[in-house]
Amino acid sequence: MPSSSEKARKYSRNHAERFRHQLHELLRIPSLSGDPAHATDVRRAAEWLAEELQAMGVKNSRVMATSGHPIVYGEWMGAGPGKPTILVYGHYDVVPAAMEDGWNTPPFEPVEKDGKIYARGATDDKGQLFIHLKALESYLESDGGAPTNVKFLLEGEEEISSPNLAPFIKDHLDLLKSDICVISDSSMRKIEEPAITYSLRGMTYIQLEIQGPKDDLHSGFWGGATHNPALALVEILSQLYNPDHTIAVPGFYDDVAPLTAEERKIIAKTELSEAQFKEATGVPATWGDARYTIRERVSARPTLEINGMWSGYSGPGPKTIIPAKAGAKLSSRLVANQDPEKIFGLLKKHIESIAPQTVKVQVKLVTTGKPALIPFDLPEMQAASRAYERAWGHKPVFTRGGGSIPIVADIVDMMKIPVVMMGYGLDSDGLHAANEHFAIEMFHRGIETAIVYLDELAGLAQARMAA
Amino acid sequence: MPSSSEKARKYSRNHAERFRHQLHELLRIPSLSGDPAHATDVRRAAEWLAEELQAMGVKNSRVMATSGHPIVYGEWMGAGPGKPTILVYGHYDVVPAAMEDGWNTPPFEPVEKDGKIYARGATDDKGQLFIHLKALESYLESDGGAPTNVKFLLEGEEEISSPNLAPFIKDHLDLLKSDICVISDSSMRKIEEPAITYSLRGMTYIQLEIQGPKDDLHSGFWGGATHNPALALVEILSQLYNPDHTIAVPGFYDDVAPLTAEERKIIAKTELSEAQFKEATGVPATWGDARYTIRERVSARPTLEINGMWSGYSGPGPKTIIPAKAGAKLSSRLVANQDPEKIFGLLKKHIESIAPQTVKVQVKLVTTGKPALIPFDLPEMQAASRAYERAWGHKPVFTRGGGSIPIVADIVDMMKIPVVMMGYGLDSDGLHAANEHFAIEMFHRGIETAIVYLDELAGLAQARMAA
Repeated sequence: MPSSSEKARKYSRNHAERFRHQLHELLRIPSLSGDPAHATDVRRAAEWLAEELQAMGVKNSRVMATSGHPIVYGEWMGAGPGKPTILVYGHYDVVPAAMEDGWNTPPFEPVEKDGKIYARGATDDKGQLFIHLKALESYLESDGGAPTNVKFLLEGEEEISSPNLAPFIKDHLDLLKSDICVISDSSMRKIEEPAITYSLRGMTYIQLEIQGPKDDLHSGFWGGATHNPALALVEILSQLYNPDHTIAVPGFYDDVAPLTAEERKIIAKTELSEAQFKEATGVPATWGDARYTIRERVSARPTLEINGMWSGYSGPGPKTIIPAKAGAKLSSRLVANQDPEKIFGLLKKHIESIAPQTVKVQVKLVTTGKPALIPFDLPEMQAASRAYERAWGHKPVFTRGGGSIPIVADIVDMMKIPVVMMGYGLDSDGLHAANEHFAIEMFHRGIETAIVYLDELAGLAQARMAA
Repeated sequence: MPSSSEKARKYSRNHAERFRHQLHELLRIPSLSGDPAHATDVRRAAEWLAEELQAMGVKNSRVMATSGHPIVYGEWMGAGPGKPTILVYGHYDVVPAAMEDGWNTPPFEPVEKDGKIYARGATDDKGQLFIHLKALESYLESDGGAPTNVKFLLEGEEEISSPNLAPFIKDHLDLLKSDICVISDSSMRKIEEPAITYSLRGMTYIQLEIQGPKDDLHSGFWGGATHNPALALVEILSQLYNPDHTIAVPGFYDDVAPLTAEERKIIAKTELSEAQFKEATGVPATWGDARYTIRERVSARPTLEINGMWSGYSGPGPKTIIPAKAGAKLSSRLVANQDPEKIFGLLKKHIESIAPQTVKVQVKLVTTGKPALIPFDLPEMQAASRAYERAWGHKPVFTRGGGSIPIVADIVDMMKIPVVMMGYGLDSDGLHAANEHFAIEMFHRGIETAIVYLDELAGLAQARMAA
């Protein structure tokens, strides 16, 4: 007689096409959390997920209000009080996408082509969170139940740094009470090398705004005696970096936990070569702090990026103005043990100290998120490793993620449970960029791996009780 | 019996309101020459002017094709072959304008308020060119003729640096043959101090484009080892200026004709104080090359301005990308004897020499225009001075204009006639900016001054014949 997880895996294979078509429905909703004009779409995505959870048997699923976009919560406690409870976290919001950014097909009209699903949110994170819904459905439909209890916590504000999630968790600690949290919102280099992420970078995101004249000026009449705000911005931004590509903000690196020789060896297992980096990104050459390897630079070292910059006229033809304003969005990726609020203070202080008196300069905090570091020798981490071996077909590597899931540090702190980051995406999925996609093969292997992980966790609990 | 010019002046006063309402019609046409989407509007403005000229008695007026936007030509030769011929140049195209730039009323719906006409093009140059049409009409209607012949050359590409005007003039030297060219496309500091412009700055306008990765990248996954194109742009732009605010491009100042002590005295008569500059522009402080006065910096010295700059995301909320591209529009205002093509070569060479190998950098020429310098002791210049004294009511100052009318140098070179720049605008009219306007009082005084100038030129020709 096949085991419960075998029945569920078989069911998931038999219903693969329907699962994908359901995912397409979710991908069609432009749930942009950062743009107030899309607030209704964000809510629509939440309602869609709550209804989907109810339909598959998680009867108490509901959309719960926050001060911002809502949270979808649902729980299946049918395994009983003696079994472990898994909290699945995911996010159903997405970053902006527009045809003019270089999309080959409309970003909110999912297309399956060459074995991939193309759509904004396909891999980040709608496709990955949907894996956990379909894993549970496969158990419930094929065997009448799952080996563990499962709770879902799906938020709509991850892309704007989850301002309401930590307060929500704090207010609902009893409701959310679980033994472990699983998050699938990360990626691997290649399908043969699944990755368990044990570290994430935090973030300090700021906006810099410069005002020169009260209106745009005619460059012929006022040019030569007016400090051009775009030039003032350029002068300030150029002073944020050292010639060796490190960050010139005093105190910026003070709290960075140094990499140990042992950890550098683990990171070296997934080293990115110059050629791989160029192939993946299209840059003419790599760049950065030469004292660290490429993989270390993109995952274990802090950064400061210009995410956007604007001033004056960018339309067709010439326009001879001195712009009234200039601005930039800047964000730092932070590593343990940097504090995002402290980094904001350092950035603000430095920028204000170098700001010229010929313009008005404002430094505003947009958002922050803490970095996270989870021990990779935890039994729940090792169970995740076995789940990949059994269902995905390859032994995973442990990696540091360069991105940020700000809530990871908060869940560890507030709920006192480990967070296991089992990513099912590929580094080349193009998330946050044009033509974001998710490999169909990985979507289905992900569902089977998520099925097996519940089995592994149930086994781990049993072994602990027996011991 | 009143003189011919007195009759014309009286007529212009009696028809003041109608003249303004006709101008409103012209201002309603969004004749943006730099935006291909508005090509039909540019043509519509040309047709409107040709019809208006015909209606007032310049029967042969017509819209003439060029490779770009058309030229309106018309002539009234009724004064006869013994009388001088005045060529009136003006432009009916405008720069872009949109409510979101800070306009209080729609830029193409003229509004009269507090003695001013608010509309894009009100002062630059529709209002100023219309003065010459109404001056001739006033003679024709009140006295059956004018004291000189008048030709009109009205173009639709001044704001994109007149790419087709010099070829048109070269091809129509006989048609355009005149004794003097008059242009009203400049301004004065205050109504009591009319200005005759004897110098204009030229221009080299370039666009700088930087490509890093092939698409926008997720800053968490690739940040730290990718040269951010916005940062590369910042690094390049910051190296175009010296700490003393001069331009750091090698050879840039080589050909600049030095200011003589005598000319610096003339310029000092219209000095702009720090307080006046701050009041007019709203900047916290002035800026620039401390070896020159403010007025010298904005009119007699070359500049390099950032007119626009763009990269990545500028919408609401955070977006954590490394942009694929960054770009800037840059323009130099040039003075005698700088050559715009040579300056382009110097800019391109310098930028390419400092461009990093980690990104792709392109420097494109957008447009050029030569600087101009006309002797202010010419009899036609002195006649203009008398016309202001008689009709405007104040003796004018001779000034250097900081802006560019690229065709001035070309008319002098090709037609071998002087160009007299009699501006009727105010420095504070906000041309090229939000809420551009033209004082009603100045519009009407301008018509009377233009009427009297024809009288003065006829007198000058008679005196020359008698001599």
